[in-house]
Amino acid sequence: MTSAKEGSAGSRPSVAPMLSVRRGSDAVDFYKSAFGATEIFRIESPDGHVVARLAVGTSEFWLGDESPLNKNFSPESLGGATTRMVLTVDDPDAVFAKAVAAGAMEVSPVTDQPYGWRVGRVLDPFGHHWEIGRPLES
Amino acid sequence: MTSAKEGSAGSRPSVAPMLSVRRGSDAVDFYKSAFGATEIFRIESPDGHVVARLAVGTSEFWLGDESPLNKNFSPESLGGATTRMVLTVDDPDAVFAKAVAAGAMEVSPVTDQPYGWRVGRVLDPFGHHWEIGRPLES
Repeated sequence: MTSAKEGSAGSRPSVAPMLSVRRGSDAVDFYKSAFGATEIFRIESPDGHVVARLAVGTSEFWLGDESPLNKNFSPESLGGATTRMVLTVDDPDAVFAKAVAAGAMEVSPVTDQPYGWRVGRVLDPFGHHWEIGRPLES
Repeated sequence: MTSAKEGSAGSRPSVAPMLSVRRGSDAVDFYKSAFGATEIFRIESPDGHVVARLAVGTSEFWLGDESPLNKNFSPESLGGATTRMVLTVDDPDAVFAKAVAAGAMEVSPVTDQPYGWRVGRVLDPFGHHWEIGRPLES
């Protein structure tokens, strides 16, 4: 936890999303195997609810078990997601295939888009959408 | 746009959230005035739909007008949000006050939390929730 806090202090201001999910512990495992996420820390409450801070490359994101009373809704509860995640990688085709192998559902295959990205989209088992791509020019 | 792409290429893999909203152009203005976001680029389609890439400090996030056909839902459409944003700053009290002055609604005031953060929460005019805080230890 110390390094996480130091990192955070060194990069203010910064912003990171916190995904609301059901089955938070399973979600941590999924993001590790699908996207190579690393776990910075995890807090587990006695009722099994999880808050976890994860990193993918230079970026961090959080996930937490939903808590509708606190206005934190999983996509399963609302029937859709209000934020999608843009995952920028060197090899979108390989990462896309790995995510699908880990249990994500293909929404649209990896293709070159007219707006200058090579990108595909998956739906993860917890209802969040991920665009996996890279700019074509670089 | 060039610098944005170079930045992106230099930090792969990375992940950034894309918030779905209604009134995307207004949302860009709000995030600038509330959180000091800077606009990296903006694409506006003929129908007025906006996709914008913004930065807060060292972090980037995107926003886009919702497109329910493509499974991109605004919080207004779903009646809640499936991701909240964690904004880490040196002075949460000041940033919180600025966000409220810009039009955000207070959900919970800035207080010291037992898990070691000083943090408050606002609801922005587009239905997304922001936790504004910093670790107490650093």
